[in-house]
Amino acid sequence: MRIGTVIGNVWATRKEDGLTGLKFLFVQLEDTGGKPIDAPLIAADRIGAGIGDTVMVTMGSAARFAIPEQDVPVDAVIIGIVDSIDVESR
Amino acid sequence: MRIGTVIGNVWATRKEDGLTGLKFLFVQLEDTGGKPIDAPLIAADRIGAGIGDTVMVTMGSAARFAIPEQDVPVDAVIIGIVDSIDVESR
Amino acid sequence: MRIGTVIGNVWATRKEDGLTGLKFLFVQLEDTGGKPIDAPLIAADRIGAGIGDTVMVTMGSAARFAIPEQDVPVDAVIIGIVDSIDVESR
Amino acid sequence: MRIGTVIGNVWATRKEDGLTGLKFLFVQLEDTGGKPIDAPLIAADRIGAGIGDTVMVTMGSAARFAIPEQDVPVDAVIIGIVDSIDVESR
Amino acid sequence: MRIGTVIGNVWATRKEDGLTGLKFLFVQLEDTGGKPIDAPLIAADRIGAGIGDTVMVTMGSAARFAIPEQDVPVDAVIIGIVDSIDVESR
Repeated sequence: MRIGTVIGNVWATRKEDGLTGLKFLFVQLEDTGGKPIDAPLIAADRIGAGIGDTVMVTMGSAARFAIPEQDVPVDAVIIGIVDSIDVESR
Repeated sequence: MRIGTVIGNVWATRKEDGLTGLKFLFVQLEDTGGKPIDAPLIAADRIGAGIGDTVMVTMGSAARFAIPEQDVPVDAVIIGIVDSIDVESR
Repeated sequence: MRIGTVIGNVWATRKEDGLTGLKFLFVQLEDTGGKPIDAPLIAADRIGAGIGDTVMVTMGSAARFAIPEQDVPVDAVIIGIVDSIDVESR
Repeated sequence: MRIGTVIGNVWATRKEDGLTGLKFLFVQLEDTGGKPIDAPLIAADRIGAGIGDTVMVTMGSAARFAIPEQDVPVDAVIIGIVDSIDVESR
Repeated sequence: MRIGTVIGNVWATRKEDGLTGLKFLFVQLEDTGGKPIDAPLIAADRIGAGIGDTVMVTMGSAARFAIPEQDVPVDAVIIGIVDSIDVESR
Protein backbone atom coordinates (compact mmCIF):
# COMPACT_ATOMS: atom_id res chain seq x y z
CA MET A 1 0.00 0.00 0.00
CA ARG A 2 0.99 3.62 -0.40
CA ILE A 3 -0.06 6.82 1.32
CA GLY A 4 -1.24 9.87 -0.53
CA THR A 5 -3.53 12.87 -0.47
CA VAL A 6 -6.94 13.14 -2.13
CA ILE A 7 -6.66 16.03 -4.60
CA GLY A 8 -9.69 15.86 -6.87
CA ASN A 9 -12.61 14.18 -8.55
CA VAL A 10 -13.25 12.58 -11.91
CA TRP A 11 -16.65 12.14 -13.53
CA ALA A 12 -17.52 9.69 -16.28
CA THR A 13 -21.14 9.23 -17.30
CA ARG A 14 -20.45 6.62 -19.95
CA LYS A 15 -18.71 3.74 -18.23
CA GLU A 16 -18.56 -0.02 -17.79
CA ASP A 17 -21.54 -1.61 -16.05
CA GLY A 18 -20.72 -2.50 -12.49
CA LEU A 19 -18.96 0.79 -11.86
CA THR A 20 -22.19 2.72 -11.38
CA GLY A 21 -22.34 4.14 -7.89
CA LEU A 22 -18.61 3.93 -7.26
CA LYS A 23 -16.91 7.25 -6.45
CA PHE A 24 -13.56 7.91 -8.14
CA LEU A 25 -10.98 10.28 -6.64
CA PHE A 26 -7.60 11.56 -7.76
CA VAL A 27 -4.94 10.67 -5.23
CA GLN A 28 -1.40 12.06 -5.23
CA LEU A 29 0.83 9.36 -3.77
CA GLU A 30 3.54 10.65 -1.45
CA ASP A 31 6.57 9.44 0.46
CA THR A 32 6.57 9.55 4.26
CA GLY A 33 7.73 13.19 4.14
CA GLY A 34 4.86 14.29 1.92
CA LYS A 35 6.87 14.50 -1.32
CA PRO A 36 4.76 13.54 -4.40
CA ILE A 37 5.51 10.21 -6.13
CA ASP A 38 4.60 9.87 -9.82
CA ALA A 39 1.51 11.41 -11.41
CA PRO A 40 -1.83 11.35 -9.54
CA LEU A 41 -3.82 8.15 -9.96
CA ILE A 42 -7.54 7.49 -9.78
CA ALA A 43 -8.75 5.34 -6.89
CA ALA A 44 -12.22 4.08 -6.07
CA ASP A 45 -13.51 5.21 -2.68
CA ARG A 46 -16.15 3.53 -0.54
CA ILE A 47 -15.29 4.93 2.88
CA GLY A 48 -16.06 8.59 2.28
CA ALA A 49 -12.64 10.17 1.81
CA GLY A 50 -12.60 13.87 0.93
CA ILE A 51 -10.29 16.42 -0.64
CA GLY A 52 -7.21 16.91 1.53
CA ASP A 53 -7.49 13.61 3.41
CA THR A 54 -4.38 11.48 3.81
CA VAL A 55 -5.31 7.99 2.66
CA MET A 56 -3.94 4.47 2.23
CA VAL A 57 -4.27 3.13 -1.30
CA THR A 58 -4.15 -0.49 -2.44
CA MET A 59 -3.15 -0.99 -6.06
CA GLY A 60 -3.37 -3.79 -8.57
CA SER A 61 -5.79 -6.68 -8.75
CA ALA A 62 -6.00 -6.82 -4.94
CA ALA A 63 -7.98 -3.56 -5.03
CA ARG A 64 -11.04 -5.44 -6.29
CA PHE A 65 -11.35 -7.15 -2.92
CA ALA A 66 -12.51 -3.90 -1.33
CA ILE A 67 -15.61 -4.01 -3.52
CA PRO A 68 -18.27 -6.47 -2.34
CA GLU A 69 -18.78 -7.98 -5.79
CA GLN A 70 -15.00 -8.38 -6.32
CA ASP A 71 -15.51 -8.73 -10.06
CA VAL A 72 -15.19 -5.07 -11.00
CA PRO A 73 -12.40 -3.70 -13.23
CA VAL A 74 -10.83 -1.48 -10.56
CA ASP A 75 -7.05 -1.36 -10.01
CA ALA A 76 -6.76 1.14 -7.14
CA VAL A 77 -8.89 1.70 -4.05
CA ILE A 78 -8.76 3.81 -0.92
CA ILE A 79 -8.73 1.36 2.00
CA GLY A 80 -8.26 3.74 4.92
CA ILE A 81 -8.07 7.32 6.09
CA VAL A 82 -4.77 7.80 7.87
CA ASP A 83 -4.90 9.14 11.44
CA SER A 84 -1.15 9.35 11.90
CA ILE A 85 2.13 7.85 10.83
CA ASP A 86 5.26 7.37 12.86
CA VAL A 87 8.45 6.85 10.89
CA GLU A 88 11.95 6.54 12.29
CA SER A 89 14.51 8.85 10.79
CA ARG A 90 17.42 6.83 9.51
CA MET B 1 -6.78 3.84 -12.81
CA ARG B 2 -5.17 6.43 -15.01
CA ILE B 3 -6.54 8.98 -17.43
CA GLY B 4 -5.35 9.32 -20.99
CA THR B 5 -6.31 10.17 -24.54
CA VAL B 6 -7.22 7.71 -27.30
CA ILE B 7 -4.67 8.28 -30.08
CA GLY B 8 -4.97 5.35 -32.46
CA ASN B 9 -5.91 1.86 -33.50
CA VAL B 10 -4.13 -1.46 -33.79
CA TRP B 11 -5.20 -4.35 -35.99
CA ALA B 12 -4.18 -7.98 -35.59
CA THR B 13 -5.84 -10.65 -37.73
CA ARG B 14 -3.91 -13.55 -36.25
CA LYS B 15 -4.60 -13.56 -32.53
CA GLU B 16 -5.51 -15.66 -29.53
CA ASP B 17 -9.02 -17.13 -29.52
CA GLY B 18 -11.32 -15.22 -27.23
CA LEU B 19 -10.04 -11.86 -28.42
CA THR B 20 -12.10 -11.91 -31.62
CA GLY B 21 -14.54 -9.00 -31.62
CA LEU B 22 -12.63 -6.96 -29.05
CA LYS B 23 -11.53 -3.51 -30.23
CA PHE B 24 -7.99 -2.43 -29.29
CA LEU B 25 -7.01 1.23 -29.03
CA PHE B 26 -3.76 3.06 -28.36
CA VAL B 27 -4.09 5.27 -25.30
CA GLN B 28 -1.55 7.89 -24.24
CA LEU B 29 -1.71 8.09 -20.46
CA GLU B 30 -1.45 11.62 -19.04
CA ASP B 31 -1.16 13.42 -15.74
CA THR B 32 -3.95 15.73 -14.60
CA GLY B 33 -2.43 18.57 -16.64
CA GLY B 34 -2.41 16.56 -19.86
CA LYS B 35 1.31 15.80 -19.88
CA PRO B 36 2.07 12.35 -21.42
CA ILE B 37 3.22 9.55 -19.09
CA ASP B 38 5.31 6.73 -20.58
CA ALA B 39 4.80 5.28 -24.05
CA PRO B 40 1.25 4.72 -25.37
CA LEU B 41 -0.32 1.41 -24.32
CA ILE B 42 -2.98 -0.72 -25.97
CA ALA B 43 -6.30 -1.01 -24.14
CA ALA B 44 -9.37 -3.05 -25.01
CA ASP B 45 -12.52 -0.97 -25.49
CA ARG B 46 -16.12 -2.09 -25.11
CA ILE B 47 -17.84 1.24 -24.51
CA GLY B 48 -17.21 2.88 -27.88
CA ALA B 49 -14.37 5.30 -27.17
CA GLY B 50 -12.99 7.19 -30.16
CA ILE B 51 -9.86 9.06 -31.20
CA GLY B 52 -9.40 12.16 -29.03
CA ASP B 53 -11.60 10.97 -26.16
CA THR B 54 -10.29 11.35 -22.62
CA VAL B 55 -10.69 7.96 -20.97
CA MET B 56 -10.14 6.11 -17.70
CA VAL B 57 -7.97 3.00 -18.06
CA THR B 58 -7.73 0.04 -15.67
CA MET B 59 -4.49 -1.90 -15.89
CA GLY B 60 -3.27 -5.29 -14.79
CA SER B 61 -5.24 -8.45 -14.11
CA ALA B 62 -8.23 -6.41 -12.89
CA ALA B 63 -8.84 -5.32 -16.51
CA ARG B 64 -10.22 -8.78 -17.32
CA PHE B 65 -13.24 -8.05 -15.15
CA ALA B 66 -14.58 -5.58 -17.72
CA ILE B 67 -14.95 -8.47 -20.18
CA PRO B 68 -18.00 -10.67 -19.53
CA GLU B 69 -16.06 -13.93 -19.85
CA GLN B 70 -13.30 -12.64 -17.52
CA ASP B 71 -10.90 -15.30 -18.77
CA VAL B 72 -9.33 -13.31 -21.59
CA PRO B 73 -5.61 -12.38 -21.69
CA VAL B 74 -6.18 -8.61 -21.53
CA ASP B 75 -4.13 -6.36 -19.22
CA ALA B 76 -5.63 -2.92 -19.95
CA VAL B 77 -9.17 -1.79 -20.62
CA ILE B 78 -11.02 1.49 -21.08
CA ILE B 79 -13.62 1.61 -18.30
CA GLY B 80 -15.06 5.10 -18.82
CA ILE B 81 -15.13 8.19 -20.99
CA VAL B 82 -14.24 11.16 -18.81
CA ASP B 83 -16.72 14.06 -18.72
CA SER B 84 -14.63 16.29 -16.50
CA ILE B 85 -12.00 16.31 -13.81
CA ASP B 86 -11.60 18.72 -10.93
CA VAL B 87 -8.18 18.78 -9.32
CA GLU B 88 -7.02 21.11 -6.59
CA SER B 89 -3.84 22.99 -7.28
CA ARG B 90 -1.39 22.36 -4.48
CA MET C 1 -0.94 -4.50 -23.81
CA ARG C 2 2.23 -3.31 -25.50
CA ILE C 3 3.62 -3.74 -28.98
CA GLY C 4 7.09 -5.05 -29.70
CA THR C 5 9.25 -7.03 -32.07
CA VAL C 6 10.26 -10.68 -31.67
CA ILE C 7 14.06 -10.69 -31.51
CA GLY C 8 15.12 -14.12 -30.29
CA ASN C 9 14.63 -17.46 -28.61
CA VAL C 10 15.39 -18.90 -25.20
CA TRP C 11 15.78 -22.58 -24.41
CA ALA C 12 15.48 -24.20 -20.99
CA THR C 13 15.49 -27.98 -20.70
CA ARG C 14 15.11 -28.05 -16.92
CA LYS C 15 11.92 -26.22 -16.12
CA GLU C 16 8.69 -26.27 -14.11
CA ASP C 17 6.16 -28.94 -15.09
CA GLY C 18 3.34 -27.49 -17.10
CA LEU C 19 5.67 -25.38 -19.24
CA THR C 20 6.69 -28.29 -21.46
CA GLY C 21 5.67 -27.62 -25.02
CA LEU C 22 5.37 -23.85 -24.60
CA LYS C 23 7.59 -21.76 -26.88
CA PHE C 24 9.37 -18.79 -25.29
CA LEU C 25 10.49 -15.79 -27.33
CA PHE C 26 12.42 -12.62 -26.56
CA VAL C 27 10.34 -9.56 -27.38
CA GLN C 28 11.67 -6.01 -27.48
CA LEU C 29 8.80 -3.73 -26.47
CA GLU C 30 8.59 -0.50 -28.47
CA ASP C 31 6.65 2.74 -28.54
CA THR C 32 4.43 3.55 -31.52
CA GLY C 33 7.45 4.94 -33.40
CA GLY C 34 9.49 1.76 -32.96
CA LYS C 35 11.76 3.06 -30.20
CA PRO C 36 12.75 0.30 -27.71
CA ILE C 37 11.24 0.41 -24.20
CA ASP C 38 13.16 -1.26 -21.37
CA ALA C 39 15.14 -4.48 -21.74
CA PRO C 40 13.72 -7.36 -23.85
CA LEU C 41 11.34 -9.65 -21.99
CA ILE C 42 10.45 -13.29 -22.51
CA ALA C 43 6.90 -14.04 -23.67
CA ALA C 44 5.18 -17.36 -24.24
CA ASP C 45 3.91 -17.83 -27.79
CA ARG C 46 1.11 -20.09 -28.95
CA ILE C 47 0.16 -18.42 -32.23
CA GLY C 48 3.36 -19.03 -34.19
CA ALA C 49 5.12 -15.66 -34.07
CA GLY C 50 8.57 -15.51 -35.62
CA ILE C 51 11.71 -13.37 -35.52
CA GLY C 52 10.96 -9.88 -36.83
CA ASP C 53 7.19 -10.04 -36.30
CA THR C 54 5.49 -7.09 -34.64
CA VAL C 55 3.37 -8.50 -31.85
CA MET C 56 0.96 -7.53 -29.07
CA VAL C 57 2.05 -8.70 -25.62
CA THR C 58 -0.11 -9.09 -22.52
CA MET C 59 1.77 -8.89 -19.24
CA GLY C 60 1.09 -9.85 -15.65
CA SER C 61 -1.25 -12.46 -14.25
CA ALA C 62 -3.69 -11.89 -17.13
CA ALA C 63 -1.20 -13.60 -19.46
CA ARG C 64 -2.13 -16.98 -18.00
CA PHE C 65 -5.55 -16.72 -19.61
CA ALA C 66 -4.03 -17.27 -23.05
CA ILE C 67 -2.99 -20.77 -21.94
CA PRO C 68 -5.83 -23.31 -21.91
CA GLU C 69 -4.94 -24.64 -18.46
CA GLN C 70 -4.65 -21.10 -17.01
CA ASP C 71 -2.69 -22.38 -14.06
CA VAL C 72 0.79 -21.99 -15.51
CA PRO C 73 3.42 -19.63 -14.06
CA VAL C 74 3.64 -17.37 -17.12
CA ASP C 75 3.65 -13.55 -16.82
CA ALA C 76 3.87 -12.48 -20.48
CA VAL C 77 2.30 -13.89 -23.62
CA ILE C 78 2.05 -12.93 -27.28
CA ILE C 79 -1.66 -12.49 -27.99
CA GLY C 80 -1.56 -11.23 -31.59
CA ILE C 81 0.58 -10.54 -34.63
CA VAL C 82 0.09 -6.90 -35.58
CA ASP C 83 -1.05 -6.18 -39.15
CA SER C 84 -0.94 -2.42 -38.84
CA ILE C 85 -1.23 0.45 -36.41
CA ASP C 86 -2.65 3.88 -37.02
CA VAL C 87 -1.64 6.55 -34.52
CA GLU C 88 -2.50 10.21 -34.65
CA SER C 89 0.42 12.58 -34.39
CA ARG C 90 -0.20 15.01 -31.58
CA MET D 1 10.05 -10.69 -3.10
CA ARG D 2 12.21 -7.86 -1.86
CA ILE D 3 14.12 -7.25 1.35
CA GLY D 4 13.74 -4.12 3.41
CA THR D 5 13.77 -2.65 6.88
CA VAL D 6 10.73 -1.88 9.03
CA ILE D 7 10.87 1.87 9.71
CA GLY D 8 7.49 2.87 11.08
CA ASN D 9 3.80 2.49 11.76
CA VAL D 10 0.63 3.81 10.20
CA TRP D 11 -2.72 4.09 11.94
CA ALA D 12 -6.11 4.36 10.25
CA THR D 13 -9.26 4.15 12.35
CA ARG D 14 -11.66 4.55 9.45
CA LYS D 15 -10.92 1.75 7.03
CA GLU D 16 -12.40 -0.98 4.85
CA ASP D 17 -14.07 -3.84 6.69
CA GLY D 18 -11.90 -6.91 6.77
CA LEU D 19 -8.77 -4.92 7.58
CA THR D 20 -9.63 -4.61 11.25
CA GLY D 21 -6.97 -6.30 13.34
CA LEU D 22 -4.30 -6.22 10.66
CA LYS D 23 -1.11 -4.36 11.59
CA PHE D 24 0.37 -2.06 8.94
CA LEU D 25 4.07 -1.16 8.89
CA PHE D 26 6.21 1.14 6.77
CA VAL D 27 8.99 -0.82 5.09
CA GLN D 28 11.93 0.73 3.26
CA LEU D 29 12.93 -1.70 0.51
CA GLU D 30 16.66 -2.05 0.01
CA ASP D 31 19.15 -3.70 -2.31
CA THR D 32 21.46 -6.42 -1.00
CA GLY D 33 23.90 -3.76 0.20
CA GLY D 34 21.28 -1.93 2.27
CA LYS D 35 20.75 0.96 -0.16
CA PRO D 36 17.11 2.22 -0.18
CA ILE D 37 14.95 1.47 -3.24
CA ASP D 38 12.03 3.82 -3.96
CA ALA D 39 9.85 5.41 -1.28
CA PRO D 40 8.78 3.38 1.77
CA LEU D 41 5.68 1.24 1.23
CA ILE D 42 3.08 -0.01 3.69
CA ALA D 43 2.95 -3.75 4.26
CA ALA D 44 0.59 -5.82 6.38
CA ASP D 45 2.29 -7.82 9.09
CA ARG D 46 1.04 -10.98 10.78
CA ILE D 47 4.30 -12.44 12.07
CA GLY D 48 5.23 -9.78 14.58
CA ALA D 49 7.93 -7.77 12.82
CA GLY D 50 9.23 -4.71 14.66
CA ILE D 51 11.04 -1.47 13.91
CA GLY D 52 14.55 -2.19 12.61
CA ASP D 53 13.87 -5.77 11.52
CA THR D 54 15.06 -6.86 8.10
CA VAL D 55 12.10 -8.46 6.38
CA MET D 56 11.00 -10.16 3.16
CA VAL D 57 8.04 -8.48 1.47
CA THR D 58 5.68 -9.97 -1.12
CA MET D 59 3.95 -7.43 -3.34
CA GLY D 60 0.96 -7.43 -5.62
CA SER D 61 -2.11 -9.63 -5.58
CA ALA D 62 -0.06 -12.57 -4.26
CA ALA D 63 0.19 -10.75 -0.92
CA ARG D 64 -3.43 -11.61 -0.15
CA PHE D 65 -2.48 -15.27 0.19
CA ALA D 66 -0.70 -14.55 3.47
CA ILE D 67 -4.05 -13.58 5.00
CA PRO D 68 -6.28 -16.53 5.92
CA GLU D 69 -9.38 -15.05 4.28
CA GLN D 70 -7.45 -14.21 1.08
CA ASP D 71 -10.15 -11.78 0.02
CA VAL D 72 -8.69 -8.66 1.61
CA PRO D 73 -7.55 -5.61 -0.37
CA VAL D 74 -3.89 -5.85 0.62
CA ASP D 75 -1.07 -5.47 -1.94
CA ALA D 76 2.03 -5.94 0.25
CA VAL D 77 2.75 -8.23 3.17
CA ILE D 78 5.72 -9.15 5.33
CA ILE D 79 6.26 -12.90 4.82
CA GLY D 80 9.44 -13.43 6.80
CA ILE D 81 12.00 -11.93 9.16
CA VAL D 82 15.42 -12.32 7.57
CA ASP D 83 18.09 -14.11 9.62
CA SER D 84 20.87 -13.63 7.10
CA ILE D 85 21.62 -13.20 3.44
CA ASP D 86 24.61 -14.44 1.50
CA VAL D 87 25.25 -12.73 -1.82
CA GLU D 88 28.17 -13.30 -4.14
CA SER D 89 30.06 -10.23 -5.19
CA ARG D 90 30.19 -10.07 -8.96
CA MET E 1 9.47 -13.48 -17.81
CA ARG E 2 12.97 -12.15 -17.38
CA ILE E 3 16.39 -13.78 -17.37
CA GLY E 4 18.89 -13.34 -14.60
CA THR E 5 21.67 -14.94 -12.63
CA VAL E 6 21.36 -16.60 -9.22
CA ILE E 7 23.68 -14.64 -6.90
CA GLY E 8 22.80 -15.63 -3.37
CA ASN E 9 20.64 -17.06 -0.63
CA VAL E 10 18.33 -15.64 1.99
CA TRP E 11 17.32 -17.35 5.22
CA ALA E 12 14.27 -16.56 7.33
CA THR E 13 13.38 -18.82 10.25
CA ARG E 14 10.31 -16.87 11.29
CA LYS E 15 7.99 -16.77 8.32
CA GLU E 16 4.42 -17.21 7.11
CA ASP E 17 3.04 -20.73 7.28
CA GLY E 18 2.99 -22.36 3.89
CA LEU E 19 6.44 -21.10 3.01
CA THR E 20 8.20 -23.78 5.04
CA GLY E 21 10.33 -25.92 2.77
CA LEU E 22 10.50 -23.37 -0.05
CA LYS E 23 14.03 -22.29 -1.03
CA PHE E 24 14.54 -18.55 -1.66
CA LEU E 25 17.35 -17.26 -3.89
CA PHE E 26 18.59 -13.80 -4.84
CA VAL E 27 18.44 -13.32 -8.60
CA GLN E 28 20.02 -10.42 -10.47
CA LEU E 29 17.84 -9.78 -13.51
CA GLU E 30 19.79 -8.94 -16.69
CA ASP E 31 19.21 -7.83 -20.25
CA THR E 32 20.14 -10.15 -23.12
CA GLY E 33 23.72 -8.86 -22.99
CA GLY E 34 24.13 -9.68 -19.28
CA LYS E 35 23.78 -6.10 -18.01
CA PRO E 36 22.04 -5.96 -14.58
CA ILE E 37 18.49 -4.58 -14.40
CA ASP E 38 17.32 -3.07 -11.09
CA ALA E 39 18.26 -4.40 -7.68
CA PRO E 40 18.38 -8.17 -7.07
CA LEU E 41 15.04 -9.74 -6.18
CA ILE E 42 14.19 -12.84 -4.17
CA ALA E 43 12.62 -15.73 -6.10
CA ALA E 44 11.33 -19.05 -4.85
CA ASP E 45 13.07 -22.06 -6.40
CA ARG E 46 11.72 -25.58 -6.76
CA ILE E 47 13.86 -26.88 -9.61
CA GLY E 48 17.25 -26.84 -7.92
CA ALA E 49 18.92 -23.74 -9.34
CA GLY E 50 22.33 -22.86 -7.90
CA ILE E 51 24.64 -19.88 -7.62
CA GLY E 52 25.78 -18.73 -11.07
CA ASP E 53 22.94 -20.38 -13.01
CA THR E 54 21.17 -18.34 -15.65
CA VAL E 55 17.47 -18.66 -14.93
CA MET E 56 14.04 -17.58 -16.18
CA VAL E 57 11.96 -15.79 -13.54
CA THR E 58 8.18 -15.29 -13.50
CA MET E 59 6.99 -12.31 -11.48
CA GLY E 60 3.72 -11.18 -9.99
CA SER E 61 0.70 -13.20 -8.99
CA ALA E 62 1.36 -15.71 -11.80
CA ALA E 63 4.38 -16.95 -9.83
CA ARG E 64 2.08 -18.74 -7.38
CA PHE E 65 1.12 -21.19 -10.12
CA ALA E 66 4.54 -22.81 -9.95
CA ILE E 67 3.75 -23.92 -6.38
CA PRO E 68 1.42 -26.94 -6.16
CA GLU E 69 -0.82 -25.33 -3.54
CA GLN E 70 -1.05 -22.07 -5.52
CA ASP E 71 -2.23 -20.20 -2.45
CA VAL E 72 1.17 -19.10 -1.18
CA PRO E 73 2.22 -15.44 -0.88
CA VAL E 74 5.05 -15.66 -3.43
CA ASP E 75 5.54 -13.00 -6.14
CA ALA E 76 8.60 -14.35 -7.99
CA VAL E 77 9.67 -17.87 -8.91
CA ILE E 78 12.41 -19.51 -10.95
CA ILE E 79 10.63 -21.45 -13.71
CA GLY E 80 13.59 -22.68 -15.74
CA ILE E 81 17.35 -22.96 -15.98
CA VAL E 82 18.42 -21.41 -19.27
CA ASP E 83 20.48 -23.59 -21.64
CA SER E 84 21.01 -20.91 -24.26
CA ILE E 85 19.54 -17.78 -25.76
CA ASP E 86 19.72 -16.61 -29.35
CA VAL E 87 19.00 -12.93 -29.90
CA GLU E 88 19.24 -11.05 -33.15
CA SER E 89 21.34 -7.93 -33.10
CA ARG E 90 19.28 -5.03 -34.33
